[in-house]
Amino acid sequence: MSVVMKFGGSSVATLDLMKQVASHVVARHQKEPVVMVISAMGKTTNQLVELAKQASNNPSKRELDMLLATGEQTSVALMTMILNDLGVKAVSLTGYQAGIKTEGHHTKNKIVAIDIQKIKRYLDDNTVVVVAGFQGMNESGDITTLGRGGSDTSAVALAAELGYDAEIYTNVDGVYTIDPRIYPNAKKLEQITYEEMKELSFLGAKVMEYHSLDIGERHHVKIYVASSQMNQPGTWIQEEEMIQVKPVTGVSISEQVLPVNIKYLPNNNKVVADVFVRLAKDGVNVDMISESYSSKNLINLSFTVSVEDESVVTSYLTELHQTYPEIKTSLEQDMVKVSLVGSGMRTQSGIAAQTFQILAELDVAFRLVTTSEISISFTIPRKEKERVANAIASHFEL
Amino acid sequence: MSVVMKFGGSSVATLDLMKQVASHVVARHQKEPVVMVISAMGKTTNQLVELAKQASNNPSKRELDMLLATGEQTSVALMTMILNDLGVKAVSLTGYQAGIKTEGHHTKNKIVAIDIQKIKRYLDDNTVVVVAGFQGMNESGDITTLGRGGSDTSAVALAAELGYDAEIYTNVDGVYTIDPRIYPNAKKLEQITYEEMKELSFLGAKVMEYHSLDIGERHHVKIYVASSQMNQPGTWIQEEEMIQVKPVTGVSISEQVLPVNIKYLPNNNKVVADVFVRLAKDGVNVDMISESYSSKNLINLSFTVSVEDESVVTSYLTELHQTYPEIKTSLEQDMVKVSLVGSGMRTQSGIAAQTFQILAELDVAFRLVTTSEISISFTIPRKEKERVANAIASHFEL
Repeated sequence: MSVVMKFGGSSVATLDLMKQVASHVVARHQKEPVVMVISAMGKTTNQLVELAKQASNNPSKRELDMLLATGEQTSVALMTMILNDLGVKAVSLTGYQAGIKTEGHHTKNKIVAIDIQKIKRYLDDNTVVVVAGFQGMNESGDITTLGRGGSDTSAVALAAELGYDAEIYTNVDGVYTIDPRIYPNAKKLEQITYEEMKELSFLGAKVMEYHSLDIGERHHVKIYVASSQMNQPGTWIQEEEMIQVKPVTGVSISEQVLPVNIKYLPNNNKVVADVFVRLAKDGVNVDMISESYSSKNLINLSFTVSVEDESVVTSYLTELHQTYPEIKTSLEQDMVKVSLVGSGMRTQSGIAAQTFQILAELDVAFRLVTTSEISISFTIPRKEKERVANAIASHFEL
Repeated sequence: MSVVMKFGGSSVATLDLMKQVASHVVARHQKEPVVMVISAMGKTTNQLVELAKQASNNPSKRELDMLLATGEQTSVALMTMILNDLGVKAVSLTGYQAGIKTEGHHTKNKIVAIDIQKIKRYLDDNTVVVVAGFQGMNESGDITTLGRGGSDTSAVALAAELGYDAEIYTNVDGVYTIDPRIYPNAKKLEQITYEEMKELSFLGAKVMEYHSLDIGERHHVKIYVASSQMNQPGTWIQEEEMIQVKPVTGVSISEQVLPVNIKYLPNNNKVVADVFVRLAKDGVNVDMISESYSSKNLINLSFTVSVEDESVVTSYLTELHQTYPEIKTSLEQDMVKVSLVGSGMRTQSGIAAQTFQILAELDVAFRLVTTSEISISFTIPRKEKERVANAIASHFEL
């Protein structure tokens, strides 16, 4: 057996935390070969972005990658010194030294290949290999970074290429059926499928990024998510056939959602399409679209955007009002999106019906509803989220 | 014409200083292609060394290089962002991206080759190339650093390979005949030979490191040393045939010198050799050796060491005393070493005689004396250094 162990920024935020992590790794290394992937220490990446903003109003993305990559380079060097001090052979590698080849736009490159020869040689020499997460090198020989969650991607992609499991150690201790801060009886899942985890990630759960889960699924990498304290068992993410599926595996609640309503818009496909084309151009991500007839010639359009985009959307609505003075627009403040996810929905019908019945019993008005093959999402007022979460969790035995 | 411009840590210590430097470079770039070489910001390297010491009692030198290299990588990325903001095409390169290949011991590698293809391509595209000084990559693909003064070495070696001049911008504004803090009338030299500058560097003048001067001399790189403020002319370091040689070009005064006397040591080559072998093993650099007969069978041995090595030397002398109880040992505190350097000494005799006459007139006792082809050095009490420096400077018209 062999393993890729990944530690995020909060797990290596100080030298003392690094020393704790190192002692776990040393114990593990006595049993099997270990590749570590680590992030930059604590808030380093944010601080470097801040520094770049002070240097330039619009820093070149190539140079931003050059700058950000120093964060992980620093942490792998220090971690390796600490491992050496504990009497273990260890070596640090930057992304490109670890053979991680990427392509795409700077600050959000994708891994396209990994040449693991160098890592293999060190592992054969009984050496812990400490790889800088989040970074690689493109075909031109420029240093690149992988965007948000990039260290998870590095870890899972390395595990895929090496044929190892990936263990993701973080500041949460696993995947819960529902946020324990909202539903204190929430259970930690022993297992979850890639598909369910991807859906949860997409819907706002912050345990792991979508892209690294996708790589894990495609390459059949078993992923284990647990606390870097290693004081209790975490959650395995793996293929469906290995897991007893439940109709609803988890619930996620996104606070970042802002429903937008446009009433009395001309019933014309081009007009509706223009709304979404224009919002996309402004960089606004639109979700949960619903359209209904107001009259034969007019429609009502509703959709959600991220609360971060409120000002962009507001100014666009003002503009739209000048073109179509008859429309009425509104933003719904203080709404949240609740999502139920479960592979079992595919085969078990009636989950939506049961959910809407629960909401009716609670007398909570739900608005926009969207469904995928294995999920159902709806918006409700923020003040209702605890009641709703509790009722759902209790009904579906989460 | 084309140029390599090097800026040291104090010239790029803050973003504001970087912006000043960048504006000079932009002006220069309008006239000719520019390669910049820059150091880590301010005291960054020292801070990283400190961090490494907190991580490990005895940090691996390979990992130390990995860590230190982030200092220059940070500064080149920020400098390039600033240049871009000023409307200039610019690109940052780490040492290895700039093609700098090294070998030797980690933390003090030597440059063995530079592949300038990538730099050339950027220069052909009218781009300012900002190279991380002090670093390269060895044959194994490990990141390496070049030791003290390494950024000067990077700059001169790149200039050699490109066939450009090297301009070294620093916090001193050129090379003086003698330290202006001691002799306020000291003149700044317009020119000095490589050989003289190397001798001065070796003897303690801190303008440039010996190794980079040596590379400059061997590859006929014209080197210009000036203030990064660029508000006054600096000093050209070049070949002797281009310079009107003077008997004495400069005087350096080293405060770091500690004379050691051992009297009544057995007159036996092996005993004397053992003293120096042992000190070398303890990492003590010995300079200015003199030996004289005390009697037929006993000798007096004097030499200087660096004041930093006082405790090592003291404990060794105690040990030596146990082996040879008849010896008498002493350290001379508060002494300085004065060195006169000038290519003209080679052809013009009597410089030593004139110097000793000056000392006799001042009634200053001088002790250890050593000479090279183009220099003469002696130790005097620290309290006499101003009087001696003034008399010498005035006599030799420095």
